Amino acid sequence: MARNTQVAADHNAPPVTQLLAQFVATHPGYLAGGWSAALDHEAHRTFFNWLGCAVGAAQHEAADAALAAVQMLQPAPQASVLGRHQKVDMASAALVNGITSHTFDFDDTHLKTIIHPAGPVASALLALAEHTGSSGRELIDALVLGIDVACRVGNAMYPEHYDRGWHITGSTGTLGAAAACARLFKLDTQKTAMALGIAASQPIGMREQFGTMSKPFHPGAAARAGLMSALLARHGFTASAKALEAPRGMMQTVSTKNDWNEITHDLGQRFEIAFNSYKPFACGIVVHPSIDACVQLRALFAQQGITLAQVERIELKVHSLVLELTGKKEPADGLQAKFSVYHGCAAGLTFGRAAEDEFSDAVVNRADMVALRRKVAATVDDSIDEASADVVAVLADGRRLHVFVEHAIGSVQNPMTDTMLEAKFRGLSEPILGAAATSQLIKACWAIGNAPSVKAVVGLATPVRP
Amino acid sequence: MARNTQVAADHNAPPVTQLLAQFVATHPGYLAGGWSAALDHEAHRTFFNWLGCAVGAAQHEAADAALAAVQMLQPAPQASVLGRHQKVDMASAALVNGITSHTFDFDDTHLKTIIHPAGPVASALLALAEHTGSSGRELIDALVLGIDVACRVGNAMYPEHYDRGWHITGSTGTLGAAAACARLFKLDTQKTAMALGIAASQPIGMREQFGTMSKPFHPGAAARAGLMSALLARHGFTASAKALEAPRGMMQTVSTKNDWNEITHDLGQRFEIAFNSYKPFACGIVVHPSIDACVQLRALFAQQGITLAQVERIELKVHSLVLELTGKKEPADGLQAKFSVYHGCAAGLTFGRAAEDEFSDAVVNRADMVALRRKVAATVDDSIDEASADVVAVLADGRRLHVFVEHAIGSVQNPMTDTMLEAKFRGLSEPILGAAATSQLIKACWAIGNAPSVKAVVGLATPVRP
Repeated sequence: MARNTQVAADHNAPPVTQLLAQFVATHPGYLAGGWSAALDHEAHRTFFNWLGCAVGAAQHEAADAALAAVQMLQPAPQASVLGRHQKVDMASAALVNGITSHTFDFDDTHLKTIIHPAGPVASALLALAEHTGSSGRELIDALVLGIDVACRVGNAMYPEHYDRGWHITGSTGTLGAAAACARLFKLDTQKTAMALGIAASQPIGMREQFGTMSKPFHPGAAARAGLMSALLARHGFTASAKALEAPRGMMQTVSTKNDWNEITHDLGQRFEIAFNSYKPFACGIVVHPSIDACVQLRALFAQQGITLAQVERIELKVHSLVLELTGKKEPADGLQAKFSVYHGCAAGLTFGRAAEDEFSDAVVNRADMVALRRKVAATVDDSIDEASADVVAVLADGRRLHVFVEHAIGSVQNPMTDTMLEAKFRGLSEPILGAAATSQLIKACWAIGNAPSVKAVVGLATPVRP
Repeated sequence: MARNTQVAADHNAPPVTQLLAQFVATHPGYLAGGWSAALDHEAHRTFFNWLGCAVGAAQHEAADAALAAVQMLQPAPQASVLGRHQKVDMASAALVNGITSHTFDFDDTHLKTIIHPAGPVASALLALAEHTGSSGRELIDALVLGIDVACRVGNAMYPEHYDRGWHITGSTGTLGAAAACARLFKLDTQKTAMALGIAASQPIGMREQFGTMSKPFHPGAAARAGLMSALLARHGFTASAKALEAPRGMMQTVSTKNDWNEITHDLGQRFEIAFNSYKPFACGIVVHPSIDACVQLRALFAQQGITLAQVERIELKVHSLVLELTGKKEPADGLQAKFSVYHGCAAGLTFGRAAEDEFSDAVVNRADMVALRRKVAATVDDSIDEASADVVAVLADGRRLHVFVEHAIGSVQNPMTDTMLEAKFRGLSEPILGAAATSQLIKACWAIGNAPSVKAVVGLATPVRP
């Protein structure tokens, strides 16, 4: 692909580092009428979905490896690793929880930018809040503001920045985490600007890492770096007050497209968390319309008494980005299958779902799944939106069944309900924490905005030492 | 400035991640004849100069702020903060020592790329070696190899990567530190490739930060990130095996110029540490020819009985990069003065030197220094090399005294002698450690390649708790 990036440096950018710092440091927050009850509920949904994902992946080998590395530092037991009994220093907890929350590719998505904002922001916040004894209200307020910073910077740079190769979740996530932690620390505007500035030197993540443990490492490392940036700023460490927008600041260095208006427009009025979405399927968001279509096809098959053995071919038409990101035709294991629209379709047709179990190595290597994947013929059609999919099942007798999905379940236009989110949460949490603790945890999460401390939620999200 | 970066993605890059990993994991090292005694001595000079810089800045407010932030994590006392009595976890020690080693802008420079390679690499290595009980030989071997990785990647990307806005010391330093720590851990080729891959997601540092504490933060954060990358790889964490060279790997994401031959050519035969240099002056390397010229002018003045009061104007001709990087005409404090070729000239003319004392806030704000800076008229002449300077002193009586410096003292062509390095070291270390300990430390540093452990050097470089 050509990289169309010949542009002149912009010496007239608005002072967005300062504007974002002021926004984060001085916004009145929810209780003072800073945003609606509906938006605050969306923040709770974001937190809830993030926590379930982190708990669910707590025993993954990526978590084991990260925790083993962190334990080489002999960390103080300041904050909890979600879904496990270990405590580590708060920066390391931010790292590990950020990794687990993204390990299943099941976390939230800001669809305008494909940022997964909770991973960096909530992972940093909860670790810091647990150690410092913050209230649930403070945490939710900081979550809204931190996610706004990450997503607005992402809006300004998307898509050029992402096209170039950056995993935008990590590269903007450091800023979101720094902003959120600065808010939790009650830093003033000047120190918040320094926190953002220090974070601006640490954009994290390359798309080449997709399919390896380093993909979920990105939100984890961003959470850690953002938390440390706020700690450094709090103690007087300095950075450029124009670290984001200057010609050799972060944004112009990592993106040749920078629409500053995306940062300044309606800042403090419109909140990007309103556009956050949650995945019904445990894989990259661009696969979801195809899976949804195949789940619907499976229902048609059931109605009409059709079996999978009768399927000769699945004709899939999608936007080019879908195959660019998830075009793995023959995935070798569960991690690779997350980047295989072919596997997603096979799972939808076979199981009517595609949660983490449907991406296990065992399922991915089942002979029937291998065979069904090979029946999927994907073609690019850029007249189809990235968020849509067109699927035709061609049967051996020549019949054609057609499903077009405009907005997949889980999109902003067709969101998962709270009940669906709870079912997803149970599927993730029960194998780790058990059914009883999961039920209590669900209740506590929905009420965290009123909790005097985050410690009750954290306690419920961590099993007792075996 | 225009950013001429329209290029197509390169799908045919050689497997440099793998080649560098194999090099680092399997190179025989010095004792097996892997490089010459002269090169090994250069590695000792690099280590020695780095250590002096770190000790010298140990009490700087940037060190205070960084250490205060790190102490919020209640770190285990695994490794020493050089020049101070505190011990912290090894990753935090790498961070703080990396910061102090670059705080005075007095550390080493790989002139082909303007990378300061010891900051990230040695800071990670010494902290790890102290905690794990490595020998001095293992440390020096890993230093040579780690610096080679950072500088070869830098050679491949320079100058486009630097021109775009990256502080190349931090962006390549993470890789150098990861390589060095992988070597110290004796990781095999496969795990070393994973360490490099994890590091590849963490390029650190924007040039906009120059003049703030975040500039020295870059080598420190790179040291920390590199060390943690090696720890993660050791425990089985994975990354793309093509994380450096893939179209959406690190190098193509952060640079549109990538000359792969700079990485592969003579790998294991030619070592970039041979081209390392050490600064006689405590500021950015591009100012050095101008300072050297002014020091020489001062000697001419002394010979001819000329006083500074007789100077009407200093006509300075330099390459455009010099003013781009260090064009601050009216620096407000010592840190800004490091980026003022005007102050460098005034210091050279007034004191005949420009060590850390000549960049103190007090000196920078002296009325005679302010006045003398204003007499310096700098013009751009791109026919003059970046490493040269042309200076004419115009006296009130019309006389003109001319000095042209082709290669400044401290360059590869005109290096500081070991004796000069020792004098520089004493100037940095004696105010912190005292004269007696400094003398012992100097001896121990020159002999570190034969030391069974690095702990003796570390012990001498840290004062007893007051």
